[in-house]
Amino acid sequence: MPFVNENFLKLKAGYLFPEIARRVRAYVAANPDKPVIRMGIGDVTEPLAPAIVSAMHAAVDEMGKRETFRGYGPEQGYDFLRNAIAANDFAARGCEIAADEIFISDGSKCDAGNILDIFGPGNTIAVSDPVYPVYVDSNVMAGNTGLADATTGEYAGLTYLRCTRESGFAPALPKGHVDLIYLCSPNNPTGAVLGRDQLKAFVDYANQHNAVIFFDAAYEAYITDPAIPHSIYEIPGSRSCAIEFRSFSKTAGFTGVRAAYTVVPKELKGKSQDGKPVDLYALWIRRHTTKFNGISYIVQRGCEAVYTNEGKKQVAALVAHYLTNARTIRNELTRLGLEVFGGENAPYVWIKSPLPSSWAFFDKLLNEAQVVCTPGAGFGTAGEGYIRLSSFNTAANVDAALKRIATIL
Amino acid sequence: MPFVNENFLKLKAGYLFPEIARRVRAYVAANPDKPVIRMGIGDVTEPLAPAIVSAMHAAVDEMGKRETFRGYGPEQGYDFLRNAIAANDFAARGCEIAADEIFISDGSKCDAGNILDIFGPGNTIAVSDPVYPVYVDSNVMAGNTGLADATTGEYAGLTYLRCTRESGFAPALPKGHVDLIYLCSPNNPTGAVLGRDQLKAFVDYANQHNAVIFFDAAYEAYITDPAIPHSIYEIPGSRSCAIEFRSFSKTAGFTGVRAAYTVVPKELKGKSQDGKPVDLYALWIRRHTTKFNGISYIVQRGCEAVYTNEGKKQVAALVAHYLTNARTIRNELTRLGLEVFGGENAPYVWIKSPLPSSWAFFDKLLNEAQVVCTPGAGFGTAGEGYIRLSSFNTAANVDAALKRIATIL
Repeated sequence: MPFVNENFLKLKAGYLFPEIARRVRAYVAANPDKPVIRMGIGDVTEPLAPAIVSAMHAAVDEMGKRETFRGYGPEQGYDFLRNAIAANDFAARGCEIAADEIFISDGSKCDAGNILDIFGPGNTIAVSDPVYPVYVDSNVMAGNTGLADATTGEYAGLTYLRCTRESGFAPALPKGHVDLIYLCSPNNPTGAVLGRDQLKAFVDYANQHNAVIFFDAAYEAYITDPAIPHSIYEIPGSRSCAIEFRSFSKTAGFTGVRAAYTVVPKELKGKSQDGKPVDLYALWIRRHTTKFNGISYIVQRGCEAVYTNEGKKQVAALVAHYLTNARTIRNELTRLGLEVFGGENAPYVWIKSPLPSSWAFFDKLLNEAQVVCTPGAGFGTAGEGYIRLSSFNTAANVDAALKRIATIL
Repeated sequence: MPFVNENFLKLKAGYLFPEIARRVRAYVAANPDKPVIRMGIGDVTEPLAPAIVSAMHAAVDEMGKRETFRGYGPEQGYDFLRNAIAANDFAARGCEIAADEIFISDGSKCDAGNILDIFGPGNTIAVSDPVYPVYVDSNVMAGNTGLADATTGEYAGLTYLRCTRESGFAPALPKGHVDLIYLCSPNNPTGAVLGRDQLKAFVDYANQHNAVIFFDAAYEAYITDPAIPHSIYEIPGSRSCAIEFRSFSKTAGFTGVRAAYTVVPKELKGKSQDGKPVDLYALWIRRHTTKFNGISYIVQRGCEAVYTNEGKKQVAALVAHYLTNARTIRNELTRLGLEVFGGENAPYVWIKSPLPSSWAFFDKLLNEAQVVCTPGAGFGTAGEGYIRLSSFNTAANVDAALKRIATIL
């Protein structure tokens, strides 16, 4: 029999979202007459904007006619989209990112996993705690960790940067040397954002240590405070130390349409085992063109429409809708006496659990209020004692969920 | 600096298609008045079928309305599509494949690379020669090979199964033990197909050796001979030894739409380093759900339309168009005195070069007839002395190319 990748066997069985789904299924089966409101998973609910719908219809029509049909596109994405991104997401914010440093993909989850293909063994890797589980699991699969601790669930070999209430849920700088650092701002799950000085401290650290930062900005559209950077490339020195992940999922409601992109500046370097510098840009092109074939032309035209004047207004309205939900959640839970974080520059609200265990509060909300949250402990040790509520919902569901929560607190 | 994946540094710089593109660009720059006909790359030219266009329009409309909007779908694909595939591609041919063994993806190239994530180091791997380069390059990247031989370009550690004219370009069974075997039928690049007995010999070998076959059936729609299996699961015993890759790219003209699928039967086993059996199905689910988020709902509705009565007729007409081109190429080149293979159950025609070197004949066709082919040497040692012509073109281009070739032979 062929050998399997044994690193997969290190993965913990009780992955967060399947465990939530299991408990919700059990509750619904036992209580079929009590409708549940799902405020757990971060999935959009509002329809695609009209400008995007029109653009995709037009693209479908093009694909149906010989004169305008398109076969294989460039694996990295069409220039029309890479140029629109470079102009709108970067040049407009003063970031020097060339169109050919932008790689269109089908999702940030995919990119965050796939990027590890170009890195070797022997790197020390830092993740924040609490953390988006994919950063950890993809490193486990790639063999970059040891076994999980039976009590904490933390993997040997990873450096966990704690995000505490005292630091406003910003990760602490690594104490020693690390080679790769995952940052996510606006943060999933805490909804915290990193300010310019905080980001600069990480960029300076990375340049001093020749480390590479993976900056996940999937939620940047939710930033309302003009002082908060939307891209790590707003920080001087970042081109030599940062890869950025962006997504259309939450910006434009594309979770079911599938589109994202990754920025790899040409300056970035790694090294071979004998210490020779190697261009990361060239390696990523090779990875992307060999193991990927680009995303649908139809979807790329939908993405392009996000950057038209009409599209910009329409997706801004979508984001405003979810941010209104977030504000409603913040205000009402604060009024009810809970400690509430996030939700001002992010679609996620992070709430101190009134019970010591976040799974216990999850169960209470499910069993007594029929509201599904995400227990913070599922995101890591430092998430214990918190829950996450997502603002991705209809206003009616948010109101109903809050009314139910009010009756049980 | 972080360590890079040094296996990437073993990859040969002169990848086939970029080298072809370079020579064509140089020719076009020097001869702007001589239009070139591209018969090299295997990309479809005909528009999407009307049933698919309608289905995608309907799906775009659904995504534009709150009541029918869909966010994240199942990573493995929607049941409506998995069920349609199970019924039409497998049950209808007598193959026992359950819908939940089918994993929808964005391309066979991606799947062929990604499948290696679940296999460990230490496996012996067989590829055919000539070979679709992605099988080799993805193994190089994963660290499953040594260095390339400076003369032949073959990688140390890979077992090459030669496909010669004497064997009808069928790969020979491995002489010793191997753990993983890549098979592609109908074949890219030779256009050869494996008959039932030939496939059975591989399945028997795999079961005796506890090996796993990666069966790439991306071109199965081009099979015209009713005796040729479309799926490896038509062979008894294959469920315990075979993973199959399928694609909508060539079946339905989806190279720019992006859709494919992989079949992983639940019986398949690998082993850990200490010899314990491990379910490959469970590993693939974990890989697929952690590092992938499914393909666009809109595209999945397009795929579903391929299996409607209308869709079946329309995509069959597309395939018939390309097969007519293939027959025209075969007949005309045979008439011109060339030795011609493939093109009867495949979109590719494999032609013995009248010059000893396939790159020399490539240059002659480009410089004298302004026709772009693919030199067989680019697919491996055993491809030397052959060229590949693709039937993916308009009838007018095929006719024009053949007229030009006739004048120079």
